[in-house]
Amino acid sequence: MTTAFPASRDAPAAEAPAPVGPMARRYAEVRQATTVLALPLSDEDCCAQSMPDASPVKWHLAHTTWFFETFVLEAYEPGFQPFHPAFRVLFNSYYQGIGAQHPRAQRGLITRPALPQVLAYRLNVDGRIARLLQERGSDAGLLALIELGLQHEQQHQELIVTDLKHLLSCNPLWPACQQPPSGQGGAEVPAAPPMAWRRYEPGVAEIGHDGSGFAFDNEAPRHTVYLARYELASRLVTNAEYLAFIEGGGYAEPAYWLAEGWEWRRSQQLEQPIYWRRSAAAPAAPGQAVGWEEFTLAGASPLWGERPVVHLSYYEADAYARWAGARLPTEAEWEVAAAREREAPPADGGEGDRAGPPLAQLFGEAWQWTQSSYAAYPGFRIAEGAVGEYNGKFMVNQYVLRGSSSATPAGHARLSYRNFFPASARWQFTGLRLARDA
Amino acid sequence: MTTAFPASRDAPAAEAPAPVGPMARRYAEVRQATTVLALPLSDEDCCAQSMPDASPVKWHLAHTTWFFETFVLEAYEPGFQPFHPAFRVLFNSYYQGIGAQHPRAQRGLITRPALPQVLAYRLNVDGRIARLLQERGSDAGLLALIELGLQHEQQHQELIVTDLKHLLSCNPLWPACQQPPSGQGGAEVPAAPPMAWRRYEPGVAEIGHDGSGFAFDNEAPRHTVYLARYELASRLVTNAEYLAFIEGGGYAEPAYWLAEGWEWRRSQQLEQPIYWRRSAAAPAAPGQAVGWEEFTLAGASPLWGERPVVHLSYYEADAYARWAGARLPTEAEWEVAAAREREAPPADGGEGDRAGPPLAQLFGEAWQWTQSSYAAYPGFRIAEGAVGEYNGKFMVNQYVLRGSSSATPAGHARLSYRNFFPASARWQFTGLRLARDA
Amino acid sequence: MTTAFPASRDAPAAEAPAPVGPMARRYAEVRQATTVLALPLSDEDCCAQSMPDASPVKWHLAHTTWFFETFVLEAYEPGFQPFHPAFRVLFNSYYQGIGAQHPRAQRGLITRPALPQVLAYRLNVDGRIARLLQERGSDAGLLALIELGLQHEQQHQELIVTDLKHLLSCNPLWPACQQPPSGQGGAEVPAAPPMAWRRYEPGVAEIGHDGSGFAFDNEAPRHTVYLARYELASRLVTNAEYLAFIEGGGYAEPAYWLAEGWEWRRSQQLEQPIYWRRSAAAPAAPGQAVGWEEFTLAGASPLWGERPVVHLSYYEADAYARWAGARLPTEAEWEVAAAREREAPPADGGEGDRAGPPLAQLFGEAWQWTQSSYAAYPGFRIAEGAVGEYNGKFMVNQYVLRGSSSATPAGHARLSYRNFFPASARWQFTGLRLARDA
Amino acid sequence: MTTAFPASRDAPAAEAPAPVGPMARRYAEVRQATTVLALPLSDEDCCAQSMPDASPVKWHLAHTTWFFETFVLEAYEPGFQPFHPAFRVLFNSYYQGIGAQHPRAQRGLITRPALPQVLAYRLNVDGRIARLLQERGSDAGLLALIELGLQHEQQHQELIVTDLKHLLSCNPLWPACQQPPSGQGGAEVPAAPPMAWRRYEPGVAEIGHDGSGFAFDNEAPRHTVYLARYELASRLVTNAEYLAFIEGGGYAEPAYWLAEGWEWRRSQQLEQPIYWRRSAAAPAAPGQAVGWEEFTLAGASPLWGERPVVHLSYYEADAYARWAGARLPTEAEWEVAAAREREAPPADGGEGDRAGPPLAQLFGEAWQWTQSSYAAYPGFRIAEGAVGEYNGKFMVNQYVLRGSSSATPAGHARLSYRNFFPASARWQFTGLRLARDA
Repeated sequence: MTTAFPASRDAPAAEAPAPVGPMARRYAEVRQATTVLALPLSDEDCCAQSMPDASPVKWHLAHTTWFFETFVLEAYEPGFQPFHPAFRVLFNSYYQGIGAQHPRAQRGLITRPALPQVLAYRLNVDGRIARLLQERGSDAGLLALIELGLQHEQQHQELIVTDLKHLLSCNPLWPACQQPPSGQGGAEVPAAPPMAWRRYEPGVAEIGHDGSGFAFDNEAPRHTVYLARYELASRLVTNAEYLAFIEGGGYAEPAYWLAEGWEWRRSQQLEQPIYWRRSAAAPAAPGQAVGWEEFTLAGASPLWGERPVVHLSYYEADAYARWAGARLPTEAEWEVAAAREREAPPADGGEGDRAGPPLAQLFGEAWQWTQSSYAAYPGFRIAEGAVGEYNGKFMVNQYVLRGSSSATPAGHARLSYRNFFPASARWQFTGLRLARDA
Repeated sequence: MTTAFPASRDAPAAEAPAPVGPMARRYAEVRQATTVLALPLSDEDCCAQSMPDASPVKWHLAHTTWFFETFVLEAYEPGFQPFHPAFRVLFNSYYQGIGAQHPRAQRGLITRPALPQVLAYRLNVDGRIARLLQERGSDAGLLALIELGLQHEQQHQELIVTDLKHLLSCNPLWPACQQPPSGQGGAEVPAAPPMAWRRYEPGVAEIGHDGSGFAFDNEAPRHTVYLARYELASRLVTNAEYLAFIEGGGYAEPAYWLAEGWEWRRSQQLEQPIYWRRSAAAPAAPGQAVGWEEFTLAGASPLWGERPVVHLSYYEADAYARWAGARLPTEAEWEVAAAREREAPPADGGEGDRAGPPLAQLFGEAWQWTQSSYAAYPGFRIAEGAVGEYNGKFMVNQYVLRGSSSATPAGHARLSYRNFFPASARWQFTGLRLARDA
Repeated sequence: MTTAFPASRDAPAAEAPAPVGPMARRYAEVRQATTVLALPLSDEDCCAQSMPDASPVKWHLAHTTWFFETFVLEAYEPGFQPFHPAFRVLFNSYYQGIGAQHPRAQRGLITRPALPQVLAYRLNVDGRIARLLQERGSDAGLLALIELGLQHEQQHQELIVTDLKHLLSCNPLWPACQQPPSGQGGAEVPAAPPMAWRRYEPGVAEIGHDGSGFAFDNEAPRHTVYLARYELASRLVTNAEYLAFIEGGGYAEPAYWLAEGWEWRRSQQLEQPIYWRRSAAAPAAPGQAVGWEEFTLAGASPLWGERPVVHLSYYEADAYARWAGARLPTEAEWEVAAAREREAPPADGGEGDRAGPPLAQLFGEAWQWTQSSYAAYPGFRIAEGAVGEYNGKFMVNQYVLRGSSSATPAGHARLSYRNFFPASARWQFTGLRLARDA
Repeated sequence: MTTAFPASRDAPAAEAPAPVGPMARRYAEVRQATTVLALPLSDEDCCAQSMPDASPVKWHLAHTTWFFETFVLEAYEPGFQPFHPAFRVLFNSYYQGIGAQHPRAQRGLITRPALPQVLAYRLNVDGRIARLLQERGSDAGLLALIELGLQHEQQHQELIVTDLKHLLSCNPLWPACQQPPSGQGGAEVPAAPPMAWRRYEPGVAEIGHDGSGFAFDNEAPRHTVYLARYELASRLVTNAEYLAFIEGGGYAEPAYWLAEGWEWRRSQQLEQPIYWRRSAAAPAAPGQAVGWEEFTLAGASPLWGERPVVHLSYYEADAYARWAGARLPTEAEWEVAAAREREAPPADGGEGDRAGPPLAQLFGEAWQWTQSSYAAYPGFRIAEGAVGEYNGKFMVNQYVLRGSSSATPAGHARLSYRNFFPASARWQFTGLRLARDA
C-alpha cells in the first residue's frame, strides 16, 4: 500500500567530505531536530489536520524546507530549479508575494506527496544548502537568510508539538506519542515556590532587541518606554490555583470576563481549559488534583496541582487575573523585569529600584500572556520583498506572549522575543504570570 | 515512524482446514474485494477525509468490520468479547440503537488505530465469522445477517471509490491511484448508440422486490402502481450532450433550474460538473471534447464526449432535462421499463405495450436520478432493533437513483434496487436517462 | 414623525359609477379582506420581519399588488406606466423572468415606502384594474389572470397571519393583536370526537383537478393512481395526544425520528412545538392542559387539549406518527378519501369500498402533512413566461399538505389543493391526520 | 392601525413650576436633543434594525431612558417602581449585573411597545428625574450619575445617526431623511488646506484625563508616557486622496493590507468604502469626484473630493497609510499633539519641541483611527456594581479612535476622549490622520 511520487529532481549524489563551518553544523542540528520530532509518528499521524489553525506534521516538514528553497536557494543557487513545481503553492503558508497558496483548512488532504517524498525533499534541500555554505559560507546576506530560516524552523518545531497534541486530543482514545515524563508517570512533582510580589519603581527604561545576535524584525528597534510603579508575581499561576478559580464558579460569573471572552465561553459552553476533563479516578499520589485529569503527549495524565497551568486562552488568563484581584502584565513590564534579573545587584547590597524575590519560571515553562496588543515598535520597518511578510502583517487583533514554553527549542528564547496569538487561542503552551499596580 | 496500537484481543490461531460452504466462500470473496481496493493506497490516502459526507478508506475498512462484529458476532458468538471496546463508538456510523458515535466530520482525525491495526481487526473478525459459519452454517438467521453484512460491505466498496476520488480531487496535483482504463489512456472511446425514445403504454404494473434472493427492506413489499403513457431515452445522456448544455448557457439561465437548485449553483458559483475543468490542451484523439478535461482515478483525463456524463447533482440532472424538453423518470417508470427488457417478446412478433429500441446502459455505467423522493412503499415495515435503522430513517429529502454504476461491485445491482442521495450530492457516479410524457 | 414618499403617479381621479360585474365584485372583496388583516396593526407591526422565511405585512400588501400590476396591468393596460419603478424590484418575490429581486432576508429594512404609500399603491392598482374590468370584462385571458391574482392574494392572506404570528411570538411580551376567540378566553372547548379508523379498499382512482373552476397548475392534470388498502384517522391529532408524546419522552428518543429530523431537533435543542411553553399557572377550566400554555394571536393562551395540534414540522408529525404506530398519509390517499365523503352513499345502504366513520376536520382546522414529496403530476406542463414560475420550480425537498387551516380564507380550499412546505417549517398552521396500512 | 400598549404607570401629572437648576436645564436639553433626532422619522424608520451591531432608533430612545431609570431612579427614588417590568430586559444593552438581555440581533422585532409608548416612557422618567433634582439637587452622587447618563445619552445620539444611516443605506432607494447640507446640494465645498507634517520631539509627556470636568473611567488615570520623535499630518485624509488609493489598485494588492484585513476584504469582495458606489452621472460642480457618488442622510450625493474621507474600517485606514508610506498614530501621539495646540506658544517666538503648521480637523469632522488597541491605562480601576461594566469589559480586540465627528453632539468631545470600535467597523464616521516616524 504505497505509491510512487514523481519527484522532479533526484537527491544529489554523495559529496566528498569537506570542512564544515559553524553555520553548516548549526543548520544540520536544527534541521535534524525537526525530523526527530516526527520519528515516533506514523504516516497517518503526520498527515492529519485537526483544525485550520493547526497544520499536519508533514506540512511543517515540507513548509520549513520550502522556506529555505524559496528564500535561500532561489536567491543564491546558480541555475536554480525547484524540487517540484507544485510545492511552491502546496507549502507556501501565507506569502502573497510568492504567489498562490493551498487553502489552509485543506492541508490535511494532501496525502500526496507522501511522507517519504517530503523527507526526500528535506534531504534534497539540505544537500543544496550544504553545498551553498561550502561555496559561499562567508556571504553575510546568505548567512542571515539561513539563520532566519533556522529560527523559523524552530518556531515550527514548537508548532509541530502543539498541533500534534491538538490532533491526538481529538481522538477519543487520547493516544500517547511519547513516554510519560518523570513526574507524570508516578514520581511526584515538586511543590511550586511560594508566590510573592516583586516590585518595580517607576521610570523610563529601554526594551527591544539591542542588536547583538539574531532577532526577528518585530523586536526592533530598541526604544524607550515609561513605566509606572508595578509588581509582578514571582512565579506562574499553577494548576491548583486555576482549579480554585474553576471550583469557585469562575466559568459561571460574567463579572470576571471580558465581554467578548464571556460570549466566546458561553457560545462554546466551555467549563475548563481545553485539555482538562473530569475524572472519577482517585489520585494516586500527593499533588494530583482530585477529580480531574489532563491530556498530554503521553496520553491521559493526572492533573498535577503544582505545575504551571497551560493552554489558557487570553480570555481565560484575563478572567483568572480579575478573579485574583490582579491583571496581566504589559510586555514592557515583563521585559524590563526579566532584564533586571540578569543585571548585577547594586553595589550597596540593596536592590535599587526593585524589591522582592527574584522571578522564577521566566523561560521554559509556559508562554506568558501580556495585555499588550501586538503592534509595531516606534520606528519599526518592514523588510523589502516577500520575507517582509514575516511579522508585520499580523499586527492586529493578536496579543503578545513573553518567555518561552516547555516545547520551545533550546536556544530559541530571548528577552526581547515577541510571540503572539489571537485571544481565543488555547492549543499553545500558554500560561500566565500575574501583575498589579503598586 | 510507526506506533504500536494495543489490541485487546489477538487474532485467532490458525485453524485446521475444514470444508468451506458457499456462504463462507462468498464472505471471503466480498471481504477480500474490499481490501483489494485499498492496496494501491498509502496509509495517508486511507486516513484522510475530504468532507463530512465522505469517509476515509480506513474508516470504511473498519466500519464494515464493525457491522459484522456488532450485528453478527455479538448476537451469535458464545462469550462474545469485542476486539477493542473503543471501536464500538469509533466505527459506528449512525446506529443510535447501538450507542454513541464518533462525530462524522472528524473521522479523518482517527490516526490511531493505524491502518495495520484496522487490517488486523478485519482478520480477527473474519476468522470468527468463518468459525461461526463452520459451526452454525445452517442457521437461517445467521446466514441472513451475514448476507446483509455482505451487501452492506458492497455498498461501502462503491463508497470507497467515490470518497477516495473526492479526496484525491482536492489535491491540486490531481494524483492518480490507478492505471488509465483502456479508452482513456489513448485508445478511442466507441461512439454512443443513437438516442431514441422507447414508449410504454399506460396501465397497472408491479414494482418492488418479488421475494427471490436478497433485497434490502426498502425494496419491499412488491406492490401495484399505475403508470400513464411515457417514454424513456434508449441510453444515458453523454458528456458531449451535457457539454452542449453548458456551452448553450445552461448554468447562466435560471429558467432551467429548480429554485433551490439555482440558489445552490449561484451561491457556490458552480459552472460545470464537479470533476470537470477547462483545459488549454488540444484533443489528442477524435472523441475528446475541446477545451475540457476531467479528474479520474487515473488522474487528469481528456473528456470523452461519448461516455455517459457522471457526477451530476439532482439539480443539474433536472436542469439538463428541462433544457432538453424532457424530465427525469419516476422510479416506477424506470423499474417497469427495465423489467420488460428481460421478458420474452410477445408471441405475435410485435412488442405489445412498448415500442422503440431496447434500453441500453441500464446497469454498470451510472446511477440514474429519478424524480421520486425516497419514501416507504405501501406496507413497508421497519425491522426490529438497531438493524432497522438501515434504511427507513433516511426517508426524507433524498431522491432515488436506479440502475448501477461503473463502481458498483459485480452482482450487487438489482431491478428493484433503490439507491438514494440528497439532491446536492455530486461525488457519486450519478448520471441521467431522460423521460417524457407521451 | 412622518415622511413624504415621492409617488411617481397619482391615484386616478374618481370615476363615474358604472355597473360592476361579478369579477369586479370578487376582486374588491378579496382585496379588501387583505387590508382588513392589517387594520389592528401598527406601522411597526407591518414593517418588521422575523426570519427570512416570513415577510412583513407591508411587503405582503405591496407584493400582492405588484402581482396585479406586473402580470395584469403591464399586459393589458394601454400606455402602461408603473406606479413606481423601484417597486418592480422591491416587491418581486422570486420571479427571475421579471428581473432582480430585493434580498429576501432584508424585506424588513424597507421602511420606505411607508405603509401609507403602500396603501396608496394598492388603491392605485385597484382603480386601474377596476377600469380594465369595465372596459374588457369579457376577455377570458384577462379574467383568468385576475383570478390567478386573487387566488395568489388569498395565499398571502394566510401568510400574513402566520408571519405576523411568528413576529409577535419573538417579542418576549407575547403581545396580542386580536381578541381571544370564544373557547380560548374562558369558554370551554368542546371535546374532540372519538378517534376511529376509516378503511379504503385497494384499486385505481383518480386525483387532481377535474377542470371545473379555478385550480393552480400543480393540481393538473387529473390522472389515475393505484392505492393499496389503507386506513385514515377520522379526525386530526389533538393537543392532548401530542402532549402525551412529549411527556412519554418523544423528544428524547431517536428511534421515533427520521435521522434528519433528529439532527434538526437536537442541534436546536427543541423540546416542544414552536409556540408552546411550560407554565406554572394552574388550569382555569376543564380541558386545559396542565403545565403548558401557547402563543396565539390573542397573546398567551391556555393549551386546550381537545384542539387539533398545529405548528408541527414534518419531522415532528412523522415522529408522532411512528410513536403512535401509524404513518403519514400520501396525498393521493388523502384526496381519494376526501372526495368520497362528498359522494352519495351506495344504493344498497352499505358503504362499498370504505368502512368506518366519516372523516371530520378535513378543512378549516389545520393543514395536514402528507408523506408525499411535492412533485409534478404525470403530464404536468409549466406555463409560458414568468407566471410559469408560480409552482413548478419549487418541486424539490418540499412536502405536500392537504386540506386547509383556520387561517385559510373562506372559499380558497379545494379537494385537489396542494400546499407545500419544507420539512422543517413550523410557523404554518400545520397538523396531522394519521394513516396506516390495513 | 394602531394598538394600545398597557403602560403600568401613567406619566406624572403636571407639576407646579419650580426653580430649575443647571443640571435640570442640561438634562432637559440633552434629552430633548435625542428626541429631535427622531422627529423626521416614521415609526417604521425608528423600529427597523439593519444589522446586529446597529440598533433601532426606538431602542436607543428607550435604552437611554432605561439607563436613567435603572442607575438613577432605582437608586434614589423612594418607593421606586419600574415604568414597565419587561423594559428591564428589553432595553438592557449588555449589563450582566442587571440581569437578562433581549437578544441584540432581535431588537428590530420589538414592534411593541410602539414608538408612542416609548416616548411616554421617556416623558415619565424625565418627570421623575426632574423631581429628584428638585428634591436632592445638591447630592453629589446623584449629580454624578445623571451626568454619566447624559454623557451616555450623547453617545447614543451619535449612534442614532450612524445606525439610521446604515439602515437607510440598505434600502435600494437610498432615501433621504434630512435636507442636503450646504455644500452637498450644489454649493461648492471649499478646498482642503494643503497637507503638511508637524513634528514632535521625543520625551516624556502626560496623557489621560486631568480630573477637571467629566470624563469616562477609561480616560483615567492621567499618566506618563514616553514618545519617540514623530510627525502628524496637519489635516485628515480627503476623499480625493483615498480615491487615488482605490484607483491606484489599493484594493487589489495584498502588500498594503494587514493579513486579517486582506481576508476581510477578499471574503466580502469589498472594493471601496461602505457608502460609495460608482456612478455614471457627470460631475455637476468642480470638486466632485468623477464616476462616484456616496450615500448620505440626504440621500445620494456627489462625492466631494475635498471632504475628509469617512466610514473607513481600521483595515482600510491602515492599508491607505501603508500605501502612502505612513502609519496610523498612537493614541498618545494624538493626545499629546492635540494638547499642545491649546498651549501658549513659547516665549522666544519659536515652537519649542514642535515644528510645522498647526493641526486642523482635530474635532468635528471624523473620528481618527489610532494603532492603539483599547486597553486599560496604568492604574485603571473598574467602578463597583453594574455601572462598572461601562467600559472595562470591552478592552480586547478594539482600536481607539480620537477626536470627534460631524455627528458628535456639541460639547461631548474632549482631548482625553477614547472612542473604540472593532477593526472591521465601517458604519461610524471614522477617518484617519496620518503619522510617521521622524
